[in-house]
Amino acid sequence: MCELLAMSANVPTDIVFSFTGLAERGGVTGPHVDGWGITFYEGKGNRTFKDAAPSCSSQVARLIKSYPIKSEVVISHIRQANRGAVRLENTHPFTRELWGRYWSYAHNGQLSNYQQPLHTKRYQRVGETDSEQAFCWLLESLVNKFGEQAPKDMIPVFEHIALLAAKIRRLGVFNMILSDGRYLMNFCSNNLCYITRRAPFGTAQLIDTDVVIDFHQETTPDDVVTIVATRPLTGNEHWQVLQPGEWKLFRLGELLCGGITAEAGLAQN
Amino acid sequence: MCELLAMSANVPTDIVFSFTGLAERGGVTGPHVDGWGITFYEGKGNRTFKDAAPSCSSQVARLIKSYPIKSEVVISHIRQANRGAVRLENTHPFTRELWGRYWSYAHNGQLSNYQQPLHTKRYQRVGETDSEQAFCWLLESLVNKFGEQAPKDMIPVFEHIALLAAKIRRLGVFNMILSDGRYLMNFCSNNLCYITRRAPFGTAQLIDTDVVIDFHQETTPDDVVTIVATRPLTGNEHWQVLQPGEWKLFRLGELLCGGITAEAGLAQN
Repeated sequence: MCELLAMSANVPTDIVFSFTGLAERGGVTGPHVDGWGITFYEGKGNRTFKDAAPSCSSQVARLIKSYPIKSEVVISHIRQANRGAVRLENTHPFTRELWGRYWSYAHNGQLSNYQQPLHTKRYQRVGETDSEQAFCWLLESLVNKFGEQAPKDMIPVFEHIALLAAKIRRLGVFNMILSDGRYLMNFCSNNLCYITRRAPFGTAQLIDTDVVIDFHQETTPDDVVTIVATRPLTGNEHWQVLQPGEWKLFRLGELLCGGITAEAGLAQN
Repeated sequence: MCELLAMSANVPTDIVFSFTGLAERGGVTGPHVDGWGITFYEGKGNRTFKDAAPSCSSQVARLIKSYPIKSEVVISHIRQANRGAVRLENTHPFTRELWGRYWSYAHNGQLSNYQQPLHTKRYQRVGETDSEQAFCWLLESLVNKFGEQAPKDMIPVFEHIALLAAKIRRLGVFNMILSDGRYLMNFCSNNLCYITRRAPFGTAQLIDTDVVIDFHQETTPDDVVTIVATRPLTGNEHWQVLQPGEWKLFRLGELLCGGITAEAGLAQN
């Protein structure tokens, strides 16, 4: 399995505190030693730092922990391989362009018998993971449903992704985080939670390493920051736990909408 | 304008020496201060480090200069903006997936009146540059010509890219480097050169900063490494200068084929 981390914020915000906690799970407090990656959106552009080395000892992860890249949307993943060898091409997040935006995605879980139902033509996976195949299938399904131009209203797009995710969930465990650089969506199969921090800000203490932050010192009163994670990263705050089949859509740190999907068949999409 | 750097090698090789020379041109010995990027292929996977900050002072560039990532194909670019603001989404190299491989590309030059002749549907640019639009058009043209599956023989694909590049060149200056992770292709409009290093290896001295390397200490007798650059990076070696319209295709450090294209019309592709 793996661990997911994502952020949506209304001002460019660095994720050093949360990533420091996550990276410990890549070999110190957790067994996720088979690579890691993090995608930062800055405007429409993004950049992904990846390493097949464990996050707890990676030189690139050290850079991320010491160099505060400020971003409104971040997606990160540390990997414990199940399907696909420990190689860079199997390391999340995965990115593809759709409708003139970079879409990035990471998955926690495992799918079975997915090749035929998740077959794609236009978006093909580069590595060997079920995760990347599911991402390609999601994007190809969006093109099939909405065409070559982005709809003006993006909410129906994410509602449709929730339906598609519910179909994928029938093939196994499918916790995922996904963004086009503006919206952050998550979908829960069995393990996903989030917290939205806003004024009055307090202090937070990481569970995985002995670090405390006083957000009051680091923020302005108007800041709104949502963090999504597989398991809570801090021990002294209340994290919202998602239900199986539940999804949430965030923008600029705020919850826009969400719902709970029923398990559904894969016959049509 | 900008400066290009690429490498093709028959063993995973680090590019720290050449990148150190290039990075100096991003603010010290050259005026290319509007961002930089470098893509390393490791197997089928790749990772791109990008920064909108000048390469001479970028913290991420410092990591690249101190952390030898070994790769068989590298593509790099430092930018002096002409079309498109100084933003991450306008920073080369650009990457898209085609035929289950990541294709990466960087461009030096400037195009005019390109929107209509290089219009695309399936691959859309995310930023505002002529460079990214030309890349999207190249890939879309490959799908139109060869279909959804990669041809078994890739040489005709690169011969076709050379014809397409010659068409783009009619719109302005189009020096480019491009790779699918196995092949490295370059196309010269007015400024591109390369050098192939093999045994017996000697020493090389950077032009842009006071660094000398003894490749004999760093290599084995079977190593073959080709470096492509806008202008020679070393002062004591003989670099091959490409002619206008000339292209070369490398794999595992060795020159596979090439040719000189005539300027051609854009009416059909």
